[in-house]
Amino acid sequence: MSAGLEKEIERGVRLHDFYYVGRDLCCEKVRVWDIVQAVGTPVYIYSHRTIVEHFRKLKRAFQSLRPLICYSMKANSNLAVLKTLVREGAGLDIVSGGELYRARRAGCEARKIVYAGVGKTGEEIEEAIRAGILLFNIESTAELGEINRIAGRLKKKVKVSLRVNPGVDPGTHRHIATGKPESKFGLDLDTAHAVFIQSPGYPALSICGIHVHIGSQILTGEPFLKAFRKVLIFVTSLEKEGCKIEYLNLGGGLGIIYSDEKPQTAEEFAQEILPLFHHRKFRLIFEPGRFIVGNAGILAARILYLKKTPVKNFAVLDTGMNDLIRPTLYDSHHEVWPLEKDPRREKRVYDFVGPVCESGDFLARDRSTQELRAGEGLAFLSAGAYGFSMASNYNSRPRPAEVLVKGSEFAVIRKRETHGDLLRGEKVPPFLR
Amino acid sequence: MSAGLEKEIERGVRLHDFYYVGRDLCCEKVRVWDIVQAVGTPVYIYSHRTIVEHFRKLKRAFQSLRPLICYSMKANSNLAVLKTLVREGAGLDIVSGGELYRARRAGCEARKIVYAGVGKTGEEIEEAIRAGILLFNIESTAELGEINRIAGRLKKKVKVSLRVNPGVDPGTHRHIATGKPESKFGLDLDTAHAVFIQSPGYPALSICGIHVHIGSQILTGEPFLKAFRKVLIFVTSLEKEGCKIEYLNLGGGLGIIYSDEKPQTAEEFAQEILPLFHHRKFRLIFEPGRFIVGNAGILAARILYLKKTPVKNFAVLDTGMNDLIRPTLYDSHHEVWPLEKDPRREKRVYDFVGPVCESGDFLARDRSTQELRAGEGLAFLSAGAYGFSMASNYNSRPRPAEVLVKGSEFAVIRKRETHGDLLRGEKVPPFLR
Repeated sequence: MSAGLEKEIERGVRLHDFYYVGRDLCCEKVRVWDIVQAVGTPVYIYSHRTIVEHFRKLKRAFQSLRPLICYSMKANSNLAVLKTLVREGAGLDIVSGGELYRARRAGCEARKIVYAGVGKTGEEIEEAIRAGILLFNIESTAELGEINRIAGRLKKKVKVSLRVNPGVDPGTHRHIATGKPESKFGLDLDTAHAVFIQSPGYPALSICGIHVHIGSQILTGEPFLKAFRKVLIFVTSLEKEGCKIEYLNLGGGLGIIYSDEKPQTAEEFAQEILPLFHHRKFRLIFEPGRFIVGNAGILAARILYLKKTPVKNFAVLDTGMNDLIRPTLYDSHHEVWPLEKDPRREKRVYDFVGPVCESGDFLARDRSTQELRAGEGLAFLSAGAYGFSMASNYNSRPRPAEVLVKGSEFAVIRKRETHGDLLRGEKVPPFLR
Repeated sequence: MSAGLEKEIERGVRLHDFYYVGRDLCCEKVRVWDIVQAVGTPVYIYSHRTIVEHFRKLKRAFQSLRPLICYSMKANSNLAVLKTLVREGAGLDIVSGGELYRARRAGCEARKIVYAGVGKTGEEIEEAIRAGILLFNIESTAELGEINRIAGRLKKKVKVSLRVNPGVDPGTHRHIATGKPESKFGLDLDTAHAVFIQSPGYPALSICGIHVHIGSQILTGEPFLKAFRKVLIFVTSLEKEGCKIEYLNLGGGLGIIYSDEKPQTAEEFAQEILPLFHHRKFRLIFEPGRFIVGNAGILAARILYLKKTPVKNFAVLDTGMNDLIRPTLYDSHHEVWPLEKDPRREKRVYDFVGPVCESGDFLARDRSTQELRAGEGLAFLSAGAYGFSMASNYNSRPRPAEVLVKGSEFAVIRKRETHGDLLRGEKVPPFLR
């Protein structure tokens, strides 16, 4: 465990509901080993309590403004996870027709759904209009024209908010920084201004919101404040010109603790942000994803082999980049905890690697932990966000099972794929037979 | 088109069977636009002829040694692609139980299957032994013990070859370099030597081969020669000590042309390599993957929106990193060709980005091509290897269809996924209802 995490736990700032009871790693009141025995490995395990608590933390912190909190479901779109949050009153932030489909299946009311993304197809737009979602977040003038055209054909008046790109560097990994000038996301402020002025040209649209999202895993309030202040100056000038801004969507991007980060808490974030928005009339929208589910999940795996080479100790696992691509794609850090602690064992440094045939297939490198044995189980922490949702069948590996724990109960919320599943939809054509 | 590709085509070195007939991009004798109209986008399209030709090129180049060419199916494991190669006489290089399942479904004889990978589970080993595969490529002494134990229990004598790590840097992307000393792959030569000496300790195994694979997308013969020479010295010393080496597996890793690379041809490669192996008795095995299918496939997509920002021209596509992760994961280059050429249009520089909500979601950056319009189709070339096989459902996006073209015929060899497919296996547990 890193010093950072130890301190958080000492300080009583509960990060999540994965902790040791005696020697055994538990999720809430269930031993992880019991789940592994019943379901096999690899398996994603989520804590219902952690998910709910993180949602409530954000809700409480901002309660004076009663914002609409739309969970950003691309982080983890399992139906049971969605249902958990929908039952807490969450709305959903969707980015595709597939996510709209999931959102409706999870029972989310359409008037709590906002739809973002630079590449909405005509079909997806039509489905979302017919469903009656709250708002589209618009990313380009071309998209604006397309939605206006489709809404006109359907004889609907559709609410949209413009995603503006404030040109702020959030200081995060280049793959997840979205508010910089060279980004594909949003409209620059001049273009957004022109759109508002020309809004009568879009008769089927009500352009009534501003959306801003500068990136992911942002650890301090400063980039947010900088971006929000820019946006507020912009909104004020729009209002002076007679535009009515009904919704202000502040996006997501709140960082979490993977290793020894010290992100702002929801409380601290709210204290910095709230003063900007008191005495303003618009409805605030937040789109947290990682903040809610990131620390609510682990990936549990088994050690297949230990391998010592002249320069490394490898623990070869039954999970790899196909199940969790974040380490190789973003250089991300996931703590590695043994499912059973043994304080008598010595410490040793390992590379944790998967079975996939490429060097990028690692989950953690140069980590000190207790000496390990083949057959033992491990947990990779903070795997609740962008874990299963990015999993693939690379190397013809079935995707893992997903399990949700609530108190002393647990349930498989997605079955492990089978070899038969891998071939679904494939067909040898007549000219090869 | 890059200067490199243009020259290759001028020189008549046929890379693949995607070319313009008049203004239309064709795959063999089929207009790509016709496929797109029939099947939709995004879609992976493979040329049967290119696949077969690349296999035959390698076979011809090495015909004097009659090697076993085991196609490395992790590059593209679609059943129809496998069947195409199996019918040509190819064996298969597998890396998982899922690949064994696919290999058998494609009709590959077990005695032409070799099984590699650092993380074979007990279950996978047992299935492969029962199937009667030719050889296991062994990556660690722990694995050797495990296979010996399982073979013993099944009362079988199992042939294995040791993968040795020659400590050669292949000068390729760090994610796909596998022969360096800090790699998880293979045994160092001292350990491999010790295993041969101790081979009577593994009574259920016949340790009769050496395997070497130093990485992927290697452009010159030099790292291969360096590695193979090291291996031959090693083999010679083993033979002097009385070990019998029946198989020498030289792996894969032959580079292809993505942009302006100038890789050795199969012919040139053979001319460099053959002299090393004439007058040696062992059976050679090759494991080409990318070399065979890399240039045999394109990813065809449509432009949803054009978006101009103060610093960029974006073409927003209906495909992204979920369908083709190579650009963001390996900084890989894929040529972008319009499905319909229009020589009257001006040139313009675009970033080609997808609909996925992250900055890493791009397919190509700063590419000069003809001025584009929304609704038009594009092809990303050299997407036959590590394209569909690494695709995911990220952002709840269904995976694309796959199509195989043969002459003037084409057939869907894998159906496009549906929204319903995304949810398969998910279940809301009783405690959430």
